[in-house]
Amino acid sequence: MSLTGEVLDTVAELRETVANLHGELTRNALVIWTAGNVSARVPGRELMVIKPSGVSYDDLSADTMVVTDLHGELVEGELAPSSDTAAHAYVYRHMPEIGGVVHTHSTYATAWAARGEPIPCVLTMIADEFGGEVPVGPFALIGDDSIGRGIVETLRASRSPAVLMRNHGPFTVGRTARDAVKAAVMVEDVARTVHKAFELGTPEPLPPEDVDRLYARYQNVYGQH
Amino acid sequence: MSLTGEVLDTVAELRETVANLHGELTRNALVIWTAGNVSARVPGRELMVIKPSGVSYDDLSADTMVVTDLHGELVEGELAPSSDTAAHAYVYRHMPEIGGVVHTHSTYATAWAARGEPIPCVLTMIADEFGGEVPVGPFALIGDDSIGRGIVETLRASRSPAVLMRNHGPFTVGRTARDAVKAAVMVEDVARTVHKAFELGTPEPLPPEDVDRLYARYQNVYGQH
Amino acid sequence: MSLTGEVLDTVAELRETVANLHGELTRNALVIWTAGNVSARVPGRELMVIKPSGVSYDDLSADTMVVTDLHGELVEGELAPSSDTAAHAYVYRHMPEIGGVVHTHSTYATAWAARGEPIPCVLTMIADEFGGEVPVGPFALIGDDSIGRGIVETLRASRSPAVLMRNHGPFTVGRTARDAVKAAVMVEDVARTVHKAFELGTPEPLPPEDVDRLYARYQNVYGQH
Amino acid sequence: MSLTGEVLDTVAELRETVANLHGELTRNALVIWTAGNVSARVPGRELMVIKPSGVSYDDLSADTMVVTDLHGELVEGELAPSSDTAAHAYVYRHMPEIGGVVHTHSTYATAWAARGEPIPCVLTMIADEFGGEVPVGPFALIGDDSIGRGIVETLRASRSPAVLMRNHGPFTVGRTARDAVKAAVMVEDVARTVHKAFELGTPEPLPPEDVDRLYARYQNVYGQH
Repeated sequence: MSLTGEVLDTVAELRETVANLHGELTRNALVIWTAGNVSARVPGRELMVIKPSGVSYDDLSADTMVVTDLHGELVEGELAPSSDTAAHAYVYRHMPEIGGVVHTHSTYATAWAARGEPIPCVLTMIADEFGGEVPVGPFALIGDDSIGRGIVETLRASRSPAVLMRNHGPFTVGRTARDAVKAAVMVEDVARTVHKAFELGTPEPLPPEDVDRLYARYQNVYGQH
Repeated sequence: MSLTGEVLDTVAELRETVANLHGELTRNALVIWTAGNVSARVPGRELMVIKPSGVSYDDLSADTMVVTDLHGELVEGELAPSSDTAAHAYVYRHMPEIGGVVHTHSTYATAWAARGEPIPCVLTMIADEFGGEVPVGPFALIGDDSIGRGIVETLRASRSPAVLMRNHGPFTVGRTARDAVKAAVMVEDVARTVHKAFELGTPEPLPPEDVDRLYARYQNVYGQH
Repeated sequence: MSLTGEVLDTVAELRETVANLHGELTRNALVIWTAGNVSARVPGRELMVIKPSGVSYDDLSADTMVVTDLHGELVEGELAPSSDTAAHAYVYRHMPEIGGVVHTHSTYATAWAARGEPIPCVLTMIADEFGGEVPVGPFALIGDDSIGRGIVETLRASRSPAVLMRNHGPFTVGRTARDAVKAAVMVEDVARTVHKAFELGTPEPLPPEDVDRLYARYQNVYGQH
Repeated sequence: MSLTGEVLDTVAELRETVANLHGELTRNALVIWTAGNVSARVPGRELMVIKPSGVSYDDLSADTMVVTDLHGELVEGELAPSSDTAAHAYVYRHMPEIGGVVHTHSTYATAWAARGEPIPCVLTMIADEFGGEVPVGPFALIGDDSIGRGIVETLRASRSPAVLMRNHGPFTVGRTARDAVKAAVMVEDVARTVHKAFELGTPEPLPPEDVDRLYARYQNVYGQH
């Protein structure tokens, strides 16, 4: 299969976007070495753009990104795709509203994942962005659809764009790759703050009706419209 | 309403100042993504300069800042003002001596806020800058005057330029926007240090008379006069 | 002894590589001041390239690196070799498959070392990179072969490329100096994440058969081949 | 009093050195805003070069440094000297071997100071640099010789170049200002690592005879001679 026509421009643009968004992962200290990845769905096509496997963040550019189909088979690019490609692809196949997926091993989110504990909704910022606690997904081995299935099943039972995969780390999703990166930045931030809060006490979760009000407002009013 | 005459120069200068001060928030790691804001009162006018809502710190410049009246209504600027504008405006209406307001979700200050615990005055630096413990304000939902009222009532009962709004995060004030930013930097610093101190023991608060002496000296002698 | 012929080019290249890899130590916040070092074996020769002793990371360049034999005797260079040279040399003498050695006092890895506790394998990333828990080596004084011997004996009883030398800090090894630096970055990352996980609970180690599967896959499938 | 002859060159050089060393404080994240200072003795003269009070680290240059006598009286410079000048001056008057003094409120060292607990010697790096535990000095108010006296009395009873002034923060000394800055960097580093070690257990101090051996070796063998 080779890419032709309009999709070529879209893919070129997404390669640039996805390459640049990896810069937000390092800038926000969510990843070390090569251990995190961003992907974007190619709108209207059974394709995605994703990071190549085991390549240093300094060496990432639009050109080094790879294009796969939604079963993780390489369609365009010189390098092997990220070893997490199957999980990203599963999400795109089963969540049509999702346009971007991010995976990191960011410290605090992964620490909650190591214990298999959801991050409780004790801050207005968590209500705003996650609409409640950040849920935990199952322990799953790499190599088949287990990780993807665990992500999708957990996210469907929640309003959160982030899931803490047990003993592994966070996956986040969004309407766009940028939204998914924002969720990755936010989940680490709230994981850290709530961790600190629990080190010296036991903060109380917000009342569910306040969570609902905050979530509704943030999703509809915040930002530029 | 349109701005004319002398106030135009003042506003232009404050736009520059407020845009630059957001750089201190990122530099001191007090904010991630778009989650913090600085404002400045326009002296002698019922106006303030504040960050637009949901705009990335990289995209902030004098031009993107917005001007509102002290009820949060947009007076000048292309973008919608920060979703915290009502809280800033309330402070300016009720604390005439205040020229700058800052809001962040900085990690350690927010962790104390999540537990609803004031930061005890166990360090000379806390006595110097805050004149005693850093107080906790009430839990308040965004959308009306509750947050602003909680800030003002708490600050009036204290010498501290910082208040930890419960389950939310710190707000700080100052004679100028720069002073408010300094207080935001300092409150996170002492929140972190005192957190660490309590992780391994129970430091004793300073005697009140020593707190008074340190506070008086720092407010009157420190710096260049 | 003076270097001639082909080895000159190899040494020149390794000086460059080793100098640059020290930049990864500072960039990943593994070292402060002068307290960490990287070395590389000169392939096929009884020689190694290593950092000089007590020199600031800013002043490191290909030229300031030193060459010693595998007993730590200076062969080329103006400066005295790192005070840890004997430990590096011992590793090269006794582990012929190893081409690079790194030593740091990175915070979290050193904290586990201070308690003499191995880092348990509670994360898929630890299974991937370390093939099980990160082991602790004996307490050993600088000045003879004790440190080198402790490193080699501990690594031989493990699949891990990292050892936490008791009350001292981590040493890591790799096929190349870059691999050893990667292990130094990864050991601090997992030391930090697992530390955080244990601060608020007791994560369970992964089942040994899953550790084996993850390790086998990562060593053989991950990256570009 | 005005400076003439040879001392002019020495002072010019020390202004440059002291200004630059403040950059190490920010680079190593030991200070925020204006809350830390470095000074250097002018060799053979009853003079010192020190940071001005309350000036931002960005605005520090050789020109803005000030010169005082060893009672803290301004001798040269436009700005008021650091509010900690009296403490620095006391150290120079009473410890003739000391050429540099540094004061910070670095997070972990200050947390130990808030509890009034010395940092135990549980790491080889602590034995190397501090020759034993890092001692705690008395609580002392600013304004007279109390802080200086507390520093000097505590350091005289120890081999450590660092003292944790109770409820205040660390002061460090050295043969040169650079040595004192190194001690400030190292004391924060070991304060942090040992803090982390104690969060999850109780590391054992090194045997005193090993501490003595490590200290002797590091002071005499390490670095370039």
